[in-house]
Amino acid sequence: MAAPTPLLKDELDIVIPTIRNLDFLEMWRPFFQPYHLIIVQDGDPSKTIKVPDGFDYELYNRNDINKILGPKASCISFKDSACRCFGYMVSKKKYIFTIDDDCFVAKDPSGKEINALEQHIKNILSPSTPFFFNTLYDPFRDGADFVRGYPFSYREGVPTAVSHGLWLNIPDYDAPTQLVKPLERNTRYVDLVMTIPKGTLFPMCGMNLTFDRELIGPAMYFGLMGDGQPIGRYDDMWAGWCIKVICDHLGLGVKTGLPYIWHSKASNPFVNLKKEYKGIFWQEEIIPFFQSATFPKGCTTVQNCYIELSKQVKEKLGKLDPYFDKLADAMVTWIEAWDELNPAKGSSKLPNGSAK
Amino acid sequence: MAAPTPLLKDELDIVIPTIRNLDFLEMWRPFFQPYHLIIVQDGDPSKTIKVPDGFDYELYNRNDINKILGPKASCISFKDSACRCFGYMVSKKKYIFTIDDDCFVAKDPSGKEINALEQHIKNILSPSTPFFFNTLYDPFRDGADFVRGYPFSYREGVPTAVSHGLWLNIPDYDAPTQLVKPLERNTRYVDLVMTIPKGTLFPMCGMNLTFDRELIGPAMYFGLMGDGQPIGRYDDMWAGWCIKVICDHLGLGVKTGLPYIWHSKASNPFVNLKKEYKGIFWQEEIIPFFQSATFPKGCTTVQNCYIELSKQVKEKLGKLDPYFDKLADAMVTWIEAWDELNPAKGSSKLPNGSAK
Repeated sequence: MAAPTPLLKDELDIVIPTIRNLDFLEMWRPFFQPYHLIIVQDGDPSKTIKVPDGFDYELYNRNDINKILGPKASCISFKDSACRCFGYMVSKKKYIFTIDDDCFVAKDPSGKEINALEQHIKNILSPSTPFFFNTLYDPFRDGADFVRGYPFSYREGVPTAVSHGLWLNIPDYDAPTQLVKPLERNTRYVDLVMTIPKGTLFPMCGMNLTFDRELIGPAMYFGLMGDGQPIGRYDDMWAGWCIKVICDHLGLGVKTGLPYIWHSKASNPFVNLKKEYKGIFWQEEIIPFFQSATFPKGCTTVQNCYIELSKQVKEKLGKLDPYFDKLADAMVTWIEAWDELNPAKGSSKLPNGSAK
Repeated sequence: MAAPTPLLKDELDIVIPTIRNLDFLEMWRPFFQPYHLIIVQDGDPSKTIKVPDGFDYELYNRNDINKILGPKASCISFKDSACRCFGYMVSKKKYIFTIDDDCFVAKDPSGKEINALEQHIKNILSPSTPFFFNTLYDPFRDGADFVRGYPFSYREGVPTAVSHGLWLNIPDYDAPTQLVKPLERNTRYVDLVMTIPKGTLFPMCGMNLTFDRELIGPAMYFGLMGDGQPIGRYDDMWAGWCIKVICDHLGLGVKTGLPYIWHSKASNPFVNLKKEYKGIFWQEEIIPFFQSATFPKGCTTVQNCYIELSKQVKEKLGKLDPYFDKLADAMVTWIEAWDELNPAKGSSKLPNGSAK
């Protein structure tokens, strides 16, 4: 087999949260082996996670997280895949690709295996167009362009901060939908990449996701989920709402669509319902909160925006449940930990978290 | 060949603007023959347009338009396909499908001929979801649903007012893009229908379009183009900006994507450039105007919104060029003519155009 050209080989880390041996990497070997992996081991730290031979990786278990972050480790979830965001923080690369260990290589309609990472890289290296909808979708793909009536001043686009990929086979449904449609499978391959318009929120799934750490990393916090928390399965959703409002404010793009991965195993809907049920009614208030969130002009960095957002969470969502007070505090802790591990280069570091 | 079930047979008119014999209908016969056609003959009214046998149609030339509308005929463009909107006005049906006479039946990737009208009807009879993005696209299609994190209170959706279809082969490019990429063809069949999110504008093309006259008809005005006007090829764009801001205000949905038609012939880019060049710089101011347009709460009907919009056009775009004063007046004339031909049933008629 001819080795694919490893795009961004030294500028991208693959982050994988897991509780088991990483046999799933065998199928990804032709695509992932040139890259560095950051494995975040969830659950019992005394367990040994086996990684197939030939992969270059670093692995962190809970003891490592506690040692590196000290008391600030409280912002990293335990017994929940939300722990993956620790990997974002310790990476030294510009780009992150994160994938779940129950995701395999999908095939396109011609039967060709999809190099998901390569497609994400294409997405993130080409501009986004959040200010006006292009009816032929991504104008930067081969064979496409901006259509008649698309303002020329918008055609340069803006930098892409996030590329959100999709899933064939098991769709990413909530527990009620899983219960109602246990046999539904996603078989529709939609040959599309598009920018999610400015001002529009979306449900970001963490299974198959790429982002630019330098542009949006500090907002990619997966919140407090799992052990000791009243909610689960909203880690990626929370991050998605936060990154979208911040990208909109800072003029950055978020794309969704290709690439597809093959999602192999539906999680247990009864377990999911228990994790989700508070989120199901909380989100009815959280979404309007994010839809109306705005930032002062002085918020010109992701960190500034994120600290501002944490204040608004405390003020406006705190009354929904004490959990949001705790979450708002964890958002601040996360930024402190991020800045500690990622000392600023030049002007992006603002002392004391003060706005410009 | 088995006849397709003619959905909405007595509730939909097909509007075709033309200057030539309608031989293109032969290819559409299996799909269009059950429906009533409204043909709007552009240009020389003494010319006879031949319609293939077996179609049920009414045909209007310029003399007919002048006779029916009297002085108000000034709002209907001449020597431009914008004249098609006269057909929207004289129809007595709930739904309109409009198509250009250089558009033919396309094939899907399996080689099957696409019944464009049937897909439009499916789009318009199922709800839209403008308030939150669904990453698996139209949740009402077979095999799809709302994904995890989609608020349940939004899942009912809103009525769909417009279904915008796309084109294989010749893409709908502006003159500069046509000049730069004379050989580009659209070969990508994207198996997708989606709602254009609230607050997002799009370039609406009139080649392959369906709408609900009762929900949005009075805003589907194609403006002043062609003979005696400083601009062409912005008729559908203008209508698209107007309907989108009004749909957003009234809580109605606009979908884009499937169905594809086969667009056979690229128009002359040099002629197009002459028609478009003012639009190319005007749109840089028109788009921000529409992006910030808002309506008072009292605007609860399409007519109210449209009259309000005409005032804002006069006030804010009039300074761009005297053309917009004329256009704003024509928008009012259009509504007067619409109301004359479509006497209100019940509460949708507001005397003197006053707000509720």
